[in-house]
Amino acid sequence: MSALFLIAPSVRTGQAVPIPAPPHVDPLPSWERGQARQAIIAFISAATRPGAGFIPVEERVAVFDNDGTLWTEQPLYFQMTFAIERIRQMVAADPSLRNKPAFATIADKDAAGLSELTEAEITAAALAVQEGLTAEEYQQIAWNWLKTARHPRFKRAFTSLVYQPQLELLNYLRANGFKTYIVSGGEVQFMRTFAQDGYGIPPEQVIGTTQNATFETRTDRSVVVAQSGMRSLDDGPGKPVHIALHIGRRPVIAVGNSDGDLQMLQYSSTPERKGLQILIHHDDAVREYAYDRQSKVGRLDKALDEASRSDWVVVSMKADWRVVYPPAPVKNQPE
Amino acid sequence: MSALFLIAPSVRTGQAVPIPAPPHVDPLPSWERGQARQAIIAFISAATRPGAGFIPVEERVAVFDNDGTLWTEQPLYFQMTFAIERIRQMVAADPSLRNKPAFATIADKDAAGLSELTEAEITAAALAVQEGLTAEEYQQIAWNWLKTARHPRFKRAFTSLVYQPQLELLNYLRANGFKTYIVSGGEVQFMRTFAQDGYGIPPEQVIGTTQNATFETRTDRSVVVAQSGMRSLDDGPGKPVHIALHIGRRPVIAVGNSDGDLQMLQYSSTPERKGLQILIHHDDAVREYAYDRQSKVGRLDKALDEASRSDWVVVSMKADWRVVYPPAPVKNQPE
Repeated sequence: MSALFLIAPSVRTGQAVPIPAPPHVDPLPSWERGQARQAIIAFISAATRPGAGFIPVEERVAVFDNDGTLWTEQPLYFQMTFAIERIRQMVAADPSLRNKPAFATIADKDAAGLSELTEAEITAAALAVQEGLTAEEYQQIAWNWLKTARHPRFKRAFTSLVYQPQLELLNYLRANGFKTYIVSGGEVQFMRTFAQDGYGIPPEQVIGTTQNATFETRTDRSVVVAQSGMRSLDDGPGKPVHIALHIGRRPVIAVGNSDGDLQMLQYSSTPERKGLQILIHHDDAVREYAYDRQSKVGRLDKALDEASRSDWVVVSMKADWRVVYPPAPVKNQPE
Repeated sequence: MSALFLIAPSVRTGQAVPIPAPPHVDPLPSWERGQARQAIIAFISAATRPGAGFIPVEERVAVFDNDGTLWTEQPLYFQMTFAIERIRQMVAADPSLRNKPAFATIADKDAAGLSELTEAEITAAALAVQEGLTAEEYQQIAWNWLKTARHPRFKRAFTSLVYQPQLELLNYLRANGFKTYIVSGGEVQFMRTFAQDGYGIPPEQVIGTTQNATFETRTDRSVVVAQSGMRSLDDGPGKPVHIALHIGRRPVIAVGNSDGDLQMLQYSSTPERKGLQILIHHDDAVREYAYDRQSKVGRLDKALDEASRSDWVVVSMKADWRVVYPPAPVKNQPE
């Protein structure tokens, strides 16, 4: 990781690292003054003051899904978009790679043609682009893509399609002593490429799907190299399992947007401490996308039912967010 | 984790959480004024001041092995001692458990008889005591044992057999902006039982061997439950792999005492940044134990050769440490 950051410490995603706001400043200016915002502020206020709802600082753990929760995930997870373009490059450079599972289909077909692949096949192929690379090497390739690639609809850098209200929420939580984690189905080293500069979340607080890896001694240094095959899927029930093994504490705040987050949100609540569960509902086709129960990417069905049963906060992107994306590309933004 | 801490927040191991010493106070009073101490202080001084050797705060990652590095590991890893006693209790209460691999041998034989088992068999049996339990349930059982069990030679609580010079080193590093991690072959949830109170290391900075686990929904809450089988071994080459996946940064300080730490120490050094590698050499049979190349537990052979080749700091327990253990049981120490 360090090598990459040394190359370009300040011009990565261009997102400013959040700075705690003074107490008289609205901590969530991009959130409409509705029930969702009120529930968040009430929870944080209670958590940080003596009395009912107080949470000791060391237990202030907040976990966030990434795709669809911190940045856009349509029309396809950005990591998948990257992997598909990368596989096409790799196959063009070395046709023998067509023998790797799903690589030939991905190289030859357009987006519609890819629907003949299962999600598991696409996921495996997306992980395979990292094989034989160290995290630093892989992140350099991913970063080179993130710097230049543009979202097909918004024509902006993918890293600029982060949600401004969520950047404020992350900042607000940290200013109140919460440790913020990403817990995502995305591959962990890919997310670490932009999590520090994009969200202010350091690599050790990024939990994701992992690939097999081995320790190797090269000429001048030892390295950890990605190998073939998935090590552990950080989705659905895998999320609380990863949280228990990695963090070793039950979170008190969990934020997601799809059925893949259902178990993580459930896990953040006990009879002794309800916690705060937040579901981002994508209902804004004008500014972003509108999808839930029928969507292939980011389906929100069971978790939406559970939200009403369990008194979770459902955030309407349309009604609760004054803005969706940071208003203008910031300095050094690669656009 | 939280449930356990709520039960007895201040009477756990009784180790005070270290408080940074003012700069005019000797940060390492239990270390003799020899080469090892000098190398440590020179490295930290350079790391925290502008100039050659400076390390940005976010890259100040220090990883410590646990058994034989932070506390005693003889005559048998304490977790193994716990597991053997626990298996005997379990088999006495439910004889059908004799059918689990190695359980009958462990229940019937004395320490000498256990040598008929392989290390892998003992490790698997030690992990098996956690099956069907949440981390909180397991940690409560482990803590009940740690409160009452006594070391066979020193007749002290196992948690009092931590190394006073290492508590000072951990404290010194944290006071200088280093994030301290445990990276140990020990089972992760067992270590989290005492790492916060014993070493000031929070659960999320404890990396260890993990057991398979699943997410389950119980009557009033969802839980993560340990299952049969090892998930990932955090020893030898597994240590840098776990570091890369969990921390996502290359450490700049690595401290160990056995060949199981060899690759972790190698990984902490590159041509661009040598880092600081420390090996604790157990050469003090009077105050602790003397063992290295021939020992079954904590063998130090290849790593000792590499230490002289690669200019690692070798700490002689006999010559470099003025005291080994905290001088007297502290208040609330369970003795």
